[in-house]
Amino acid sequence: MAKRVAVVLAGCGVFDGSEIHEASAVLVHLSRQGASVKVFAPDIDQMHVVDHLKGAPTEEKRNVLVESARLARGDIQDLSQLNVKDLDAVIFPGGFGAAKNLCSWAVEGKDCSVNEQVQTVLKAFHAEHKPIGLCCISPVLAAKVFPGCEVTVGHENDERCPDVPGTAAAITELGCKHVCKTVSESHVDEKNKIVSTSAFMCKAPLHEIFDGIGTMVQDVLKLA
Amino acid sequence: MAKRVAVVLAGCGVFDGSEIHEASAVLVHLSRQGASVKVFAPDIDQMHVVDHLKGAPTEEKRNVLVESARLARGDIQDLSQLNVKDLDAVIFPGGFGAAKNLCSWAVEGKDCSVNEQVQTVLKAFHAEHKPIGLCCISPVLAAKVFPGCEVTVGHENDERCPDVPGTAAAITELGCKHVCKTVSESHVDEKNKIVSTSAFMCKAPLHEIFDGIGTMVQDVLKLA
Repeated sequence: MAKRVAVVLAGCGVFDGSEIHEASAVLVHLSRQGASVKVFAPDIDQMHVVDHLKGAPTEEKRNVLVESARLARGDIQDLSQLNVKDLDAVIFPGGFGAAKNLCSWAVEGKDCSVNEQVQTVLKAFHAEHKPIGLCCISPVLAAKVFPGCEVTVGHENDERCPDVPGTAAAITELGCKHVCKTVSESHVDEKNKIVSTSAFMCKAPLHEIFDGIGTMVQDVLKLA
Repeated sequence: MAKRVAVVLAGCGVFDGSEIHEASAVLVHLSRQGASVKVFAPDIDQMHVVDHLKGAPTEEKRNVLVESARLARGDIQDLSQLNVKDLDAVIFPGGFGAAKNLCSWAVEGKDCSVNEQVQTVLKAFHAEHKPIGLCCISPVLAAKVFPGCEVTVGHENDERCPDVPGTAAAITELGCKHVCKTVSESHVDEKNKIVSTSAFMCKAPLHEIFDGIGTMVQDVLKLA
């Protein structure tokens, strides 16, 4: 029987939503593995809207669920409708949206708060021993909700990953273990069934990021 | 030396812009083939903005270049800046944006007009015998600008491609040849150096669409 996987989005665009290529890669790899996919996003306002041409916030308001629907080609549900009993695994792509709309890491770092629905979903999968897949900055969601867990956001000694040392330090301060991995690898925390990969935390060619996400997706499905 | 490829976007979202997964697939395959990529979009208003959750137009205004920048992670240029002398090939992903913002096919079919910059770019690559890659609905751009050319938008006898017979008939009325191809295949018009594949014109699993786009990208690079 096909593994049933929820993908939770945070908008559509690297600077204020889900990183588009990460989200697409997750969906391509799930499709290739024959998974049955449902896409979700919270029905909340984005923290802000960024003009991706200028790289600066605008005065606009956009809704996370409505913008995430672009990535899902309209086939998406409100995150409040997610029922863990109907699903075998959950995956959170990265992008600043994960750190702005799903939690407040982008502005508060390790002192961030996590959106309540997101927290509920993460705890529900964890309690049922169902795997959680994360990439790029979204592993901080697990670090905040599950002290003691193990995640990777990349390699601290790779000059292509300039933001990894600071993020890894914050993860460590939360009582978690940061494990260095290259962009093509994922880290599996077997005990917590948490799988993570660095994706765009590393400035690698797009196909390497795509392949690294493929590793994460496969590891999630193995645990499901 | 790396092949230099322009990717021309039309916004960000299947119903009013570039189809996100097609655009991402083009970029992943170009990265894997070692191409040097520049992303462009016209600095014009979108024909309209569609709420992808409801599937209905809104009152909002959005700019094609600004929204396309989401797909390009900010690394994008105004289409008016494209110089064919600096490039070896051009690729246009599909999505309704190609038929709404780059031409008016979505409302006028074969009687559509093509955006002037888009027309200039297409004719420039054609005149230099440099290849043009197209997918989904974007092959109608070639059909309109190059009467007599050959393209595919899918297979007319595949029930997963309900919109193909009508689109193929319109392409034929423009004096072009529609060639039936499955979602995993591309068609190469050797004479005109036009390469096309059906992508989301066929309701196939996402990884099959991804692979079909890979075939198109490889065929474009072979001709470049």
